[in-house]
Amino acid sequence: MESFFSFLEKRVDDCTSLLCVGLDPHIPDLKEPTAKSARDFCLNLVKQTARYAAAFKPNAAFFEAFGAEGWTVLKQVIEAIGEESARFGSMIPVVLDAKRGDIASTAEAYARSAFETLGAHCITISPYLGYDSIEPFIQNQEKGVFLLCKTSNVGSKDLQDVLVTPAGTESSVPLYIHVATLARQWNSRNNVGIVVGATQPQIMSDIRAAAPDLWFLAPGVGVQGGELGSTLRAGLRRDGKGLLIPISRSISRAGNTARAAAEIRDQMLEIREQLRR
Amino acid sequence: MESFFSFLEKRVDDCTSLLCVGLDPHIPDLKEPTAKSARDFCLNLVKQTARYAAAFKPNAAFFEAFGAEGWTVLKQVIEAIGEESARFGSMIPVVLDAKRGDIASTAEAYARSAFETLGAHCITISPYLGYDSIEPFIQNQEKGVFLLCKTSNVGSKDLQDVLVTPAGTESSVPLYIHVATLARQWNSRNNVGIVVGATQPQIMSDIRAAAPDLWFLAPGVGVQGGELGSTLRAGLRRDGKGLLIPISRSISRAGNTARAAAEIRDQMLEIREQLRR
Repeated sequence: MESFFSFLEKRVDDCTSLLCVGLDPHIPDLKEPTAKSARDFCLNLVKQTARYAAAFKPNAAFFEAFGAEGWTVLKQVIEAIGEESARFGSMIPVVLDAKRGDIASTAEAYARSAFETLGAHCITISPYLGYDSIEPFIQNQEKGVFLLCKTSNVGSKDLQDVLVTPAGTESSVPLYIHVATLARQWNSRNNVGIVVGATQPQIMSDIRAAAPDLWFLAPGVGVQGGELGSTLRAGLRRDGKGLLIPISRSISRAGNTARAAAEIRDQMLEIREQLRR
Repeated sequence: MESFFSFLEKRVDDCTSLLCVGLDPHIPDLKEPTAKSARDFCLNLVKQTARYAAAFKPNAAFFEAFGAEGWTVLKQVIEAIGEESARFGSMIPVVLDAKRGDIASTAEAYARSAFETLGAHCITISPYLGYDSIEPFIQNQEKGVFLLCKTSNVGSKDLQDVLVTPAGTESSVPLYIHVATLARQWNSRNNVGIVVGATQPQIMSDIRAAAPDLWFLAPGVGVQGGELGSTLRAGLRRDGKGLLIPISRSISRAGNTARAAAEIRDQMLEIREQLRR
């Protein structure tokens, strides 16, 4: 059995890409405010960008907003990614961006929903409820999680930046460092990564120092203002991997989405090459 | 316009109850593992217990696990609560237990999903992403949230119990006290409450001291081991309200669900009466 991050790394190698294409069917970006239109939007994006995508990240909220029909579409989109993967002969991981988090028996139901009902390979989840809320998602090493650690929004300071003194320690660290440390402990099956926003490279650098081996999902490049060069510099592991960069609107709103995805992928590779020199 | 907690208090007065009936269609409790069976289970529970319910709390996970069909059922169940409310002439609030939490534009989609698509009045959400992730849920004062503060599970110690030193302060407090303090600040429209597990009365008492005015949603009584008397003693506000106690399996698994709900409601009232003496 392959662990989730071995699976992801294989795909990263196959397509030489760190790009994670975000599937965010925002209503203003759709031809009509309908689930059908959301499906067309996502299927087109999958088709145009699959070649350059190390992973796809559908955002559950934008599907849920359409109710039951939205869930049908979400499942269809995940299936379409599987079919597109088959065409290339290289499976593309699907990271369901759902930020779930609940106690054990409920977490089991969410895990079933994400991995069995929908067929995703990985899910974003909140760490706030602690290990027993995460365990049901990582029991099967083929499935993975990205735990929220330091997010890209302004409000992330309210909890994540607060200085904490974890039990058994004397010096204080921001809560996000505590979460990164917990994630390392919980990563015994190579299927726990963390979400680290790309809007504050110094913080990303600090988290990389605290968790040299973990995969980061780093949203915030592009529309939210995060800069690609500084993000790669701060977040890449020594092996040139460990960083998955989700891009949504900068690709979906481009005139030529395939070219936009290719260009961003190439930019990442070029910067990575420069950093290696 | 009425605030969410004025609405809830009106219902609490109408039915003299602090009982929140949990709608958790666990597969082992269903006749068949199907969405249709989940619907029958919930509709029966609603019909049997509405008279004693200050609120209903459907748990999104158990519906999501059935995919699109589960979402259709969730919407039907919420509609049925509205119809049952109309029979009694006293609207029963629906708290969607979904524990969502995401950045602004995504949070807006989740708020639309919960309040518009599904028709819930309130939702449980995670505080981990901070104020801007919560704001879209509380803009309309008629809709409310319960922020996760201190949950009833063992793993809650991993983050929630860690000692923190909030900016501008010198003494350290557990993270859950910091969250309770933030929730008070964010409650300017009387529509922000917190989730405080019933398994640790001393902690509930400390949180009550830090947030004398907030409503608590207090899961954990019954199957999880929380005791009703100590929970009411620790968590009730001075006005004998402020505490909503969700009960799921102790009611749904009873031979006579209506009687079980009535008995638990009466027990709560009796204890509350004793505490007032």
